[in-house]
Amino acid sequence: MSNELKRGLEGVLVAESELSHVDGEAGRLVYRGHDIEALARGATYEEVLYLLWHGTLPTRAELDSFADALAAERGVDENVLATVRRLADADEEPMAALRTAVSMLSAYDDAVTEADEGDVLAEGARITAKIPTILAAFDRARRGESPLEPDPSHSHAGDFLRMLTGTAPDDVREETFDMALTLHADHGLNASTFTALVIGSTMADVYAAVTGGIGALSGSLHGGANQDVMEMLYEVDESGKDPTEWVQAATDEGRRIPGFGHRVYEVKDPRAQILSEKLDDLAAASGDDRWLRYTAAIESYLTDEGLTDQGIAPNVDFYSGSVYESMGIPIDLYTPIFAMSRVGGWVAHVNEYRTDNRLIRPRARYTGPESAEFVPVDER
Amino acid sequence: MSNELKRGLEGVLVAESELSHVDGEAGRLVYRGHDIEALARGATYEEVLYLLWHGTLPTRAELDSFADALAAERGVDENVLATVRRLADADEEPMAALRTAVSMLSAYDDAVTEADEGDVLAEGARITAKIPTILAAFDRARRGESPLEPDPSHSHAGDFLRMLTGTAPDDVREETFDMALTLHADHGLNASTFTALVIGSTMADVYAAVTGGIGALSGSLHGGANQDVMEMLYEVDESGKDPTEWVQAATDEGRRIPGFGHRVYEVKDPRAQILSEKLDDLAAASGDDRWLRYTAAIESYLTDEGLTDQGIAPNVDFYSGSVYESMGIPIDLYTPIFAMSRVGGWVAHVNEYRTDNRLIRPRARYTGPESAEFVPVDER
Repeated sequence: MSNELKRGLEGVLVAESELSHVDGEAGRLVYRGHDIEALARGATYEEVLYLLWHGTLPTRAELDSFADALAAERGVDENVLATVRRLADADEEPMAALRTAVSMLSAYDDAVTEADEGDVLAEGARITAKIPTILAAFDRARRGESPLEPDPSHSHAGDFLRMLTGTAPDDVREETFDMALTLHADHGLNASTFTALVIGSTMADVYAAVTGGIGALSGSLHGGANQDVMEMLYEVDESGKDPTEWVQAATDEGRRIPGFGHRVYEVKDPRAQILSEKLDDLAAASGDDRWLRYTAAIESYLTDEGLTDQGIAPNVDFYSGSVYESMGIPIDLYTPIFAMSRVGGWVAHVNEYRTDNRLIRPRARYTGPESAEFVPVDER
Repeated sequence: MSNELKRGLEGVLVAESELSHVDGEAGRLVYRGHDIEALARGATYEEVLYLLWHGTLPTRAELDSFADALAAERGVDENVLATVRRLADADEEPMAALRTAVSMLSAYDDAVTEADEGDVLAEGARITAKIPTILAAFDRARRGESPLEPDPSHSHAGDFLRMLTGTAPDDVREETFDMALTLHADHGLNASTFTALVIGSTMADVYAAVTGGIGALSGSLHGGANQDVMEMLYEVDESGKDPTEWVQAATDEGRRIPGFGHRVYEVKDPRAQILSEKLDDLAAASGDDRWLRYTAAIESYLTDEGLTDQGIAPNVDFYSGSVYESMGIPIDLYTPIFAMSRVGGWVAHVNEYRTDNRLIRPRARYTGPESAEFVPVDER
C-alpha cells in the first residue's frame, strides 16, 4: 500500500470503462467513441441511452422497441405522487424532493427483491423513465396544479416539457432540450457517477445508487453551477450596466465567475460550444438576445484579460442555464434536469462495473492519537 | 497521473482522519485513540457520538447537555410518519424505507437552506436522533400498530427498544444494545462512510450524505452479513443436526460461511470478541443457549480445519445477529440498526472532511473505441 495521500482521488484510476472519455487537452468528449457533437446533433436522448446501456447505437427497430418500453414506464405510483405533493407543500428543495421520490419508487417496483438478483438495466430504465414525471409533478404541485399523466406518444424530452408546462413543446424547444439531455448524459467518473458506482459496488440496487447520485449532484461543487450562472446573468440584467463593465467590476472585486473552469478540461468544454450555438437559435426565435449578449461579453472579457488561460474556459454550465431560461424552465429545476439526464450515465456505469465487481473501499491515513486512556465520565 | 488501476481503491489513502483506526494485524480498533473495548464497556453510545463529533470524551456536564439536546430531536414530522406508513403498507424493505424516510426529513428541517452554510454536526444530530423513531415506527406500522412517541427520559438505545417493543427494556438488554451501537459507530472508510464522504465533498447537505450511506449499507457486500449469519443459524437449528456436523457438511459442499473474514482484519475482529461475551450473558439470562452453542461450534470447526488462517476469522457480523435475535429484534432490522449506529461515523467523517474539503473525483481508464463513425438511425 502506497503511503501517498490521494486528495480528492485526483488522477486515480478506479475502474476501466468503455462509456465515455473526456480528453481535456483536446476539448473532446466521446460516448463509446462517438463525438458528443455528432450525438447531440444527430441522435435523440433515447438513442444515447441505448448506446450507453447496450453498447452500440440502435437500429430503427431496436430504437423503436427500446423507446416504447421506456415511455411505457413513465407512470408514477399514486403513493409517490402523494409524497411529492407533501414535499411541495413543505417547500422542499427540488433536488431533495427528487432524491426522496426516487428513493420511494423502489417500494412500488415489484421486481426489487434481492439486491444481487436485480437487473440493473431494467431497474435503471424504470427510474430513468419516471424522473421527468416526478419533476413535472413536483413543479406543478408547488404551483397548485395537478400532475399531468405521461403520454407515451411523446419523446422523453418532449413529454417532460409537456408535463411541466401543460403544452406540447414546439420542435425547436424539444430538440434543444433533447440535445441538452444528450450533452449531460455521461462524463466519466464525476462525483455523482462515482457515488453511484461506490453504492452499486456493495451490490445495492439501482434505486440506492441513483438516490446517492442525486444527493451528490445536489452539492454546490457539483451540479449547481448552471443555476449560479443564471443568477449572475439576472444580476447583470438588473444592474442595467453594460455586461463587459459589469464583469470587469466583478472580477476587480475578486468575485469568482461561475461557469468557467473544470477539473478535467483545459480548453473550452465541447458541450459549451454546442449549447452556445443553440442559445443563438433560441435568441433568434424569441427576439430576446440578452443572455446571448451577456454570456458573449463575459466570455470575451475573461478571454481578453487572459483569465481563461490555464484551463479557465467556459464550461457546459455557462450556457445551459440561459438555454433553459429561454425555454421558460424555473431556475431551481436546472440541477434536477441535470439529474434527469445524468441518470443515464449512473445506470450505465453501475451496469458496466457489475461485470467485474469489486467493493470500493479506500483507506484514511489515521492521524489521531495512538492510544488514549479511558477515564469514566464521572471522573473526567 | 499514475497509470495503475486501483481496483476497489484497496489500500488507497483518500483522506487523513483522526476518527478511527483499524489495526488489522493486531485486531485492534480505536476511536480517537480509545480502544473499542474500553468504550464499549465503559461509555454510552451518546458519549461515543460526542467523542467522534467533538474530539474528546465529554465531562458529565457536557454529556448531559449533549444527550438532552439529542433526545429532544427524536420527534419525527407527521408527514414523514405518513410516508413511513405507506412504505410499510407497500411491504418495502426496511433499509429502503429508512433511506426514503431519512431523505424526506430534510423537508421538515427549517435549518436546511443553502448547502454550504449548513452546520454538519447540528444537522447530523437531528438525523441521528430521528433514525430510531423512524425504524420503530416502520416496524410497528407493518405489524398494524401505531408509532409510539419518543420519551427523552430514556437513552438513545433504550428509547429505540421501548418504541420498537412497547416496553422499556431491562438493564441487560439496554446495555447490550447500547454496546452494539458503540461497536458499529465507526470503522474507517468503509463503503458507506466513503459514500457519505464523496457526497459530502460536493458540499451537499448531511441528509444527502446519510441517505447515500444508507443506500451503500443496504448492499449485500456491506451491511447485510449479520442477517445472513442469523439465517444460517436458523438453518442449523431447523436441521436438527449437531452444529459441527452441519458446518462440516456445509463447507464440504463449498458453501461460504457468512460472518467470517474481513478486508481489513487479519485476526479476530475485536468487536466480535466483545459481542461473543454478551451472547454468553444473554444466554445465561434467558436459559436459551442455542445461538451460543452454534456459533461456538462453527467457529471451533473452522479454526480447527485451518480455514480461519489467512484472515478468515469471525467478524462482528458473526455475533451481532444472535445478540439481536436474543433480544427479540426482527431479523430484517439488523442492517437498519447497523445504519442507526454508523450514522454517527458518517456524520463525523463528513464533518472532519469539511475542514479541508476537496471534491472527490477519480478517473476511469477509458477502454472504449477511440473514435466511431456516426451513422443516422435510418441508415444503420
